Amino acid sequence: MFSVKNRLSDAKLTGLKEVVIGDKSIPLSDVLVDLGNGALMPASQITEASPIDFPLRKAINVITKTAPLPEGKYKVKIEFKASPFGNLEIKVEDSIAKEDTNLVKIPRNDLDDYSEEAIKSRHKFIDEYVRKNVNPDFKGVNHITKYSFDPHLTQGNCEHFVGVAQVPMGIAGPLRINGEHAKGDFLIPLATAEGTLVASYNRGMKVLNMSGGVTCTVIGDAMQRAPVFCFENAREAREFHKWVQANFARIAEEAEATSSVAKLQYIDTYLSNKFAYMRFNYSTGDAAGQNMVGRATFAACSWILDAYTPGKIKNFYLESNFATDKKASQVNVMHTRGKRVVAECTIKRDVLIQIMRVEPEKLATHYHIANIGSILSGANNNGLHSANGITAMFIATGQDVANVSESSAGIMYAELTPEGDLYMSITIPSLIVATHGGGIKLATQNECLQMLGCTGRNTVNKFAEIVAGVVLAGEISLASAISSSDWVSSHEQYGRNR
Amino acid sequence: MFSVKNRLSDAKLTGLKEVVIGDKSIPLSDVLVDLGNGALMPASQITEASPIDFPLRKAINVITKTAPLPEGKYKVKIEFKASPFGNLEIKVEDSIAKEDTNLVKIPRNDLDDYSEEAIKSRHKFIDEYVRKNVNPDFKGVNHITKYSFDPHLTQGNCEHFVGVAQVPMGIAGPLRINGEHAKGDFLIPLATAEGTLVASYNRGMKVLNMSGGVTCTVIGDAMQRAPVFCFENAREAREFHKWVQANFARIAEEAEATSSVAKLQYIDTYLSNKFAYMRFNYSTGDAAGQNMVGRATFAACSWILDAYTPGKIKNFYLESNFATDKKASQVNVMHTRGKRVVAECTIKRDVLIQIMRVEPEKLATHYHIANIGSILSGANNNGLHSANGITAMFIATGQDVANVSESSAGIMYAELTPEGDLYMSITIPSLIVATHGGGIKLATQNECLQMLGCTGRNTVNKFAEIVAGVVLAGEISLASAISSSDWVSSHEQYGRNR
Amino acid sequence: MFSVKNRLSDAKLTGLKEVVIGDKSIPLSDVLVDLGNGALMPASQITEASPIDFPLRKAINVITKTAPLPEGKYKVKIEFKASPFGNLEIKVEDSIAKEDTNLVKIPRNDLDDYSEEAIKSRHKFIDEYVRKNVNPDFKGVNHITKYSFDPHLTQGNCEHFVGVAQVPMGIAGPLRINGEHAKGDFLIPLATAEGTLVASYNRGMKVLNMSGGVTCTVIGDAMQRAPVFCFENAREAREFHKWVQANFARIAEEAEATSSVAKLQYIDTYLSNKFAYMRFNYSTGDAAGQNMVGRATFAACSWILDAYTPGKIKNFYLESNFATDKKASQVNVMHTRGKRVVAECTIKRDVLIQIMRVEPEKLATHYHIANIGSILSGANNNGLHSANGITAMFIATGQDVANVSESSAGIMYAELTPEGDLYMSITIPSLIVATHGGGIKLATQNECLQMLGCTGRNTVNKFAEIVAGVVLAGEISLASAISSSDWVSSHEQYGRNR
Amino acid sequence: MFSVKNRLSDAKLTGLKEVVIGDKSIPLSDVLVDLGNGALMPASQITEASPIDFPLRKAINVITKTAPLPEGKYKVKIEFKASPFGNLEIKVEDSIAKEDTNLVKIPRNDLDDYSEEAIKSRHKFIDEYVRKNVNPDFKGVNHITKYSFDPHLTQGNCEHFVGVAQVPMGIAGPLRINGEHAKGDFLIPLATAEGTLVASYNRGMKVLNMSGGVTCTVIGDAMQRAPVFCFENAREAREFHKWVQANFARIAEEAEATSSVAKLQYIDTYLSNKFAYMRFNYSTGDAAGQNMVGRATFAACSWILDAYTPGKIKNFYLESNFATDKKASQVNVMHTRGKRVVAECTIKRDVLIQIMRVEPEKLATHYHIANIGSILSGANNNGLHSANGITAMFIATGQDVANVSESSAGIMYAELTPEGDLYMSITIPSLIVATHGGGIKLATQNECLQMLGCTGRNTVNKFAEIVAGVVLAGEISLASAISSSDWVSSHEQYGRNR
Repeated sequence: MFSVKNRLSDAKLTGLKEVVIGDKSIPLSDVLVDLGNGALMPASQITEASPIDFPLRKAINVITKTAPLPEGKYKVKIEFKASPFGNLEIKVEDSIAKEDTNLVKIPRNDLDDYSEEAIKSRHKFIDEYVRKNVNPDFKGVNHITKYSFDPHLTQGNCEHFVGVAQVPMGIAGPLRINGEHAKGDFLIPLATAEGTLVASYNRGMKVLNMSGGVTCTVIGDAMQRAPVFCFENAREAREFHKWVQANFARIAEEAEATSSVAKLQYIDTYLSNKFAYMRFNYSTGDAAGQNMVGRATFAACSWILDAYTPGKIKNFYLESNFATDKKASQVNVMHTRGKRVVAECTIKRDVLIQIMRVEPEKLATHYHIANIGSILSGANNNGLHSANGITAMFIATGQDVANVSESSAGIMYAELTPEGDLYMSITIPSLIVATHGGGIKLATQNECLQMLGCTGRNTVNKFAEIVAGVVLAGEISLASAISSSDWVSSHEQYGRNR
Repeated sequence: MFSVKNRLSDAKLTGLKEVVIGDKSIPLSDVLVDLGNGALMPASQITEASPIDFPLRKAINVITKTAPLPEGKYKVKIEFKASPFGNLEIKVEDSIAKEDTNLVKIPRNDLDDYSEEAIKSRHKFIDEYVRKNVNPDFKGVNHITKYSFDPHLTQGNCEHFVGVAQVPMGIAGPLRINGEHAKGDFLIPLATAEGTLVASYNRGMKVLNMSGGVTCTVIGDAMQRAPVFCFENAREAREFHKWVQANFARIAEEAEATSSVAKLQYIDTYLSNKFAYMRFNYSTGDAAGQNMVGRATFAACSWILDAYTPGKIKNFYLESNFATDKKASQVNVMHTRGKRVVAECTIKRDVLIQIMRVEPEKLATHYHIANIGSILSGANNNGLHSANGITAMFIATGQDVANVSESSAGIMYAELTPEGDLYMSITIPSLIVATHGGGIKLATQNECLQMLGCTGRNTVNKFAEIVAGVVLAGEISLASAISSSDWVSSHEQYGRNR
Repeated sequence: MFSVKNRLSDAKLTGLKEVVIGDKSIPLSDVLVDLGNGALMPASQITEASPIDFPLRKAINVITKTAPLPEGKYKVKIEFKASPFGNLEIKVEDSIAKEDTNLVKIPRNDLDDYSEEAIKSRHKFIDEYVRKNVNPDFKGVNHITKYSFDPHLTQGNCEHFVGVAQVPMGIAGPLRINGEHAKGDFLIPLATAEGTLVASYNRGMKVLNMSGGVTCTVIGDAMQRAPVFCFENAREAREFHKWVQANFARIAEEAEATSSVAKLQYIDTYLSNKFAYMRFNYSTGDAAGQNMVGRATFAACSWILDAYTPGKIKNFYLESNFATDKKASQVNVMHTRGKRVVAECTIKRDVLIQIMRVEPEKLATHYHIANIGSILSGANNNGLHSANGITAMFIATGQDVANVSESSAGIMYAELTPEGDLYMSITIPSLIVATHGGGIKLATQNECLQMLGCTGRNTVNKFAEIVAGVVLAGEISLASAISSSDWVSSHEQYGRNR
Repeated sequence: MFSVKNRLSDAKLTGLKEVVIGDKSIPLSDVLVDLGNGALMPASQITEASPIDFPLRKAINVITKTAPLPEGKYKVKIEFKASPFGNLEIKVEDSIAKEDTNLVKIPRNDLDDYSEEAIKSRHKFIDEYVRKNVNPDFKGVNHITKYSFDPHLTQGNCEHFVGVAQVPMGIAGPLRINGEHAKGDFLIPLATAEGTLVASYNRGMKVLNMSGGVTCTVIGDAMQRAPVFCFENAREAREFHKWVQANFARIAEEAEATSSVAKLQYIDTYLSNKFAYMRFNYSTGDAAGQNMVGRATFAACSWILDAYTPGKIKNFYLESNFATDKKASQVNVMHTRGKRVVAECTIKRDVLIQIMRVEPEKLATHYHIANIGSILSGANNNGLHSANGITAMFIATGQDVANVSESSAGIMYAELTPEGDLYMSITIPSLIVATHGGGIKLATQNECLQMLGCTGRNTVNKFAEIVAGVVLAGEISLASAISSSDWVSSHEQYGRNR
């Protein structure tokens, strides 16, 4: 069975002309076509008079009634006619290999893989497999098996579900946030195993509260997918770029047809060599949106591939490492990925001295010297440890924690005011957060979002503001500890487990 | 009460000469010294004849029997004599402010903050506070409160403990790893809420297994703390650098005295302007070691501050953003932070075509084009999504998940062999992992480490190799999906929750 | 004498109210205003009835008839009335110091500083000064004094003119260029003192010629000035950004009024903390345009400062290091500075083997391995040495050679074709070139531009294409040398002077 | 004729066994060996009894007495015996193509290519070629032909010599430099066509002089070549790295045998994937040293290739883009290339206000805001325009101007002193300068070096200090102009030519 997918445009299949496997042509009478609705049609019945629909992105399965092929590699050629394209020919290389019967497989239940039975069978499998193959002293799974929710809730979140990691959670705050969306005093759930983290953030929150709270603002919002189109040469790539700009409205229409939420804001093109790297920028509502923009961009690109002068696009990949998903990057720092948020506060001199035992001048000097350290080391953050607070909140609230890669970037700025107070602010240029989709609906995670009042529509910016406020609290706390040099001590006192 | 800390070297306090608060000198008869053992000694009893010990890093509290000071700012001066230093004078600025009695405080239990009672009091606090101040519809905490272990276990991991985040866990594999430490087939626990992640990694593992397994090697190992010393000018900084190099053995001795594990390997100096940025590089056994090297470097620097020509060092901070902790950076990519690990495999052409439906050439071409994408976008990883697997394993096994910032860097290399197979490898230059300390002992996390046979001594490199192998599986899987362009579809099929 | 400059908008000065120097108010009868046309007007004559014009960017000098002030620092306050602004007050700090009469000054001739006499007097000064103060054996200037043109030609190019540096020039080529603007075979002038450079480029040109010539394309064009506007907080900065976008047409009008050539294409805003960094992107005709866009942006900003809600903009600098002039940067690599040019060629296998003694496979492999080297080292160019050819052409043709900083960035791409040939291309993302202004009119430089047919209107893209073609020749040549490992030898043979 | 080069180690050729061209074996009686001394020896005379010397890096030409081969591709195989290696076989692919008789060639004179006649013939060629092929209105070369020195001086600097580019030169200063090597007041020659550059630097020098002069210090010194060794896998690369460390002394010996000056300081290894990137760091006396370290590293690598376990090193390239020659890079910023120099000065408040009309606070604020601009834009310099002064001095003094790529990196630091003065310093981490070799001996260039007292032994650090001092002058000048906002004006006044 072979599958032919239409990536060009709506068409009609008006005839199957030849199927060759290896060097053997299969008689058309032995070829059936699977229409996708369960019906099989003899290939010979497809004619110009009685064509079958072959819409864009539809795959048609071609089945040959041949004896099972021996193992080995095969070149397969399928020739067919499709209106309005005429004769088309597809050549692929395929191979048939014996399934290794010794292959160990994780137990699955095709009917309901999230049933208690299915999960238990995997527990049993783990226990036996690990004891036999990895660790004879393995005591078996006894804790990961303890969860307080219906495992079906994790369908769509986790395949081969076996239970949960229980990550300790503490709370800090309340933190006073003067946002446009988050207004008021919030208790902050932090899931972490890092001793002193909660205490340290809590201390920073006290300083912020005593200085009137932290002002938080979302200043940018965009989620990306970045396909690349390959051409004969640079000139063709440049012409293509112009065409895409000229056809933006139509492209956006195709992209947005895939979702009620995604809006294509603009496409940034980066031309290099014979390639056109295109960063599609979307707004995605309360979702983080990586999958949403993947689908939308795929649809947009399908249309482009169909609509652009045939033969010009030599190659195409839906992703080119320009997104840049799950990676820190300069483009994200410059141009935002997810939310671009700023948290800022003018910290009162007296508060800093009283609570943190450090003068603003020492903090400012450390900031300036650490700036040179950041530049020399090529760090993506001239602040201190925003990743700590972000990660703890991400785990607590069901965010995609792998996005700490992007979200850990930061741009710190500090200056003394004429009054001797300290203005501090941090820009998080690529904070990827959601209050819809992904892990948001999970039991403990949703509870934490409710704790922040961040469930329901139009809450994602509120959540982003809270995260930013928490981050600034952590920066003040650690910067003070470093500048007053009692930093190690504070770790010593709390972090007894290490 | 004021506190005087000795940051110079072992000494004896031979007299307290004057204590001035604001513009008022306190009669010595009204000054007491707290010896730290509960005993208070009148200041006048400290004399050259009867000195008191004042060892390095010891703090002595000075207590004045004055009427409570009114709110306000105060300059405090303490003059004392210490042998062998002679007369010393400390001036600080302090302020006294009314504690805001309206300040909301999270309930704590000073006797046992991890007792059921203490935790319950915080649950009640959360419920009431959130309903009143944040979210009137809050249903209260019902899931985070469900954990299967004695909460005292989290002492040293999490202050203000209120429960756990339950992160869904699936398993993938077994994955065949040909490491120097990890040898055999491992079941991989992955804690994630990202649909398709487990399935996608599992698919990549199949490809690796069918190609003979993945070869993993730890090629570097170092954990850093990076103090900065500030001087009058660049010349002084350069001379200091030479002195440090000359005194390395002694500095290492001081550093290593703080731990039975930490070994100071070498100090990298980066001179700039009038600053000497010094990156202390340690090996830290099975621990990730950030705190360990913090303590060790602090001790080393205390010695340096004491031993170097008095007056030359104008300023000093224990951290300069050169570590670079919790941040992606070029210095970590170049010079390792945590473990530097490589996973590599020559993937058989047939396997790739049969399992992934993609020819090696298409993958190789995508790699080359995505390389340009990475370079243009300034990404810290020319691979695709190593952070996904790393994060899921980090959460499952109690790693410091915030280190995904550093650990998400990657250097991918792919090439076609003359036989038409595909050599693929990824270097993870700053993978920060531990099998000792931090969250390792937590209930579910330890279970997962046992599943991998990574508990006990000398298991951290084994664990690092396993993580690297998993990462390569994920790279193959996603690279194939992009190159065969069915990537969006695979997300569609599984990730139904978004 | 003090100078008051109008940076707001066209106005009328309707009265001078008070001038205070130090703590002394100067009687208005002792104050004169210099109208800039040589005329002095008593301050008291300026009234609402008889105002004087005070246009935007005009400076008015205020002269006080006081006894010479003793040396020292003075605070100066000037109060005046201007329509339509009302009362304005300017406070500055100034100081008066004795001119050091021992100060050595380079001889100048105020009437004609490019006269033979003026230049000779500087020659004499050099000879005497150097012999006395620096190098008693100095033989005097005998060669820099030899130039073949009227030194007045360098007016606007070089102050304190004393002669010329004579940089050796060789020629390479002809090189066949298949550009959109440069079509044909060009002889390339290269000014350099680096042995083997000319020979090496010449060898690469031969390879390109035998492969049909090099295809060159300008794919981007923009010159920038990047002011920064500072606000109370991030929210204000974001609102300002929206306002600027909304008022783009008017801003462009103001900018373009300063030049018949500069066109403001678009403004990229980068928001961070409380700052709005704005990268103004212009096209600048045949000029490199740094000064042109400086003037245009200054005018645009003057309008903005005037038009935006008063009091909102707290601070403003015309340049923020985002341009990024005379510096390599990621933003230039991504977003072009000057011309973005690609040179590409499919090099025939036989030609490479015959001329360069290296197989395409070895070159491709080196490219891939060197790519990892570039990524690890954080280089701004994954090619080999484009700066060599660029610099030699820049010196020869009167470009601003300091722009080698930006122009040395490069993005190389190489791939084997199915036929075994080698496609190679290099993108120069920030090539800053001109065929008008700057050093273009100088004697030898103009001769070289004529040699390339790049004088006169609309020749800058032609010149950019030629430079790119030359760069690719150099890449092929050095890449072949490295891959065939006879690289050192080729330096040995020619570079006998070192 | 074929050439066989010995890249292994000293050997003796003890027999030529077979020469095959295409599919035809050449009778040994028709094969001659060229001993390099003019003598041809029949292949058959080389035997174990009468071997010929075949030292390392020697090439032996093998000449076959066959009829001229028709055009086409040929595989060539040469089998021979060499002691102590035994039988060796070399296979290459070669091709013979008709020399294109239409190929235009630049006239050369094999006897003396720097003779007046040779140069004149090229002038004639330029005039005719350009008029015919490029620019019919070409007036011919009249200015580049005017040079004041014997062109033989440029042998080793410039092939196909045709004359000189005359770059205008002005002087600035004197500048007071408080270096360790440069002490005193120096007149600075600047070769540039950028209007206002000389005047602007001159203004900055005045400020420095009035603040007591600029303190300059060389804080690092290293020149690199960075070969890459390729292995079967990462483990082999790691073992190789250990071996290299263990054999460092021997490797240094081999490297240093090639030069009386070059000293191998240390080798930095960067392991990634299956590659060992090795950055060889040398000191190179007064030379810039790129060629010197190329030769030395080649010798060291030849020894390594010979001495390391046979078969382990799969591939080797003398350069891996890790040097990073002619490219800006993070590794150079961190680890120095050429000289690492700092220029610093505490600029007096009064001087800044009086001469530059700007308060230190405004400059400091601009520095801090521009720092964020640099970080966001990914610039390799957080200062303003060091490349301007560096380039002008490089052209004037015969430096390799293409090194502006590396030399343009900079790390600026500014801070207000408690007295209200401004400490400013710039680190130039990769300033590549020489006072020996390259263009140093050229007529005008040497004159400029003499002007600075930088000819003769041990003058390179003096020169580096002077360059750094000049750079700081330029930074102060432009920073003041930006902060006082009269920057465009200053360009306007002088730069009349654009």
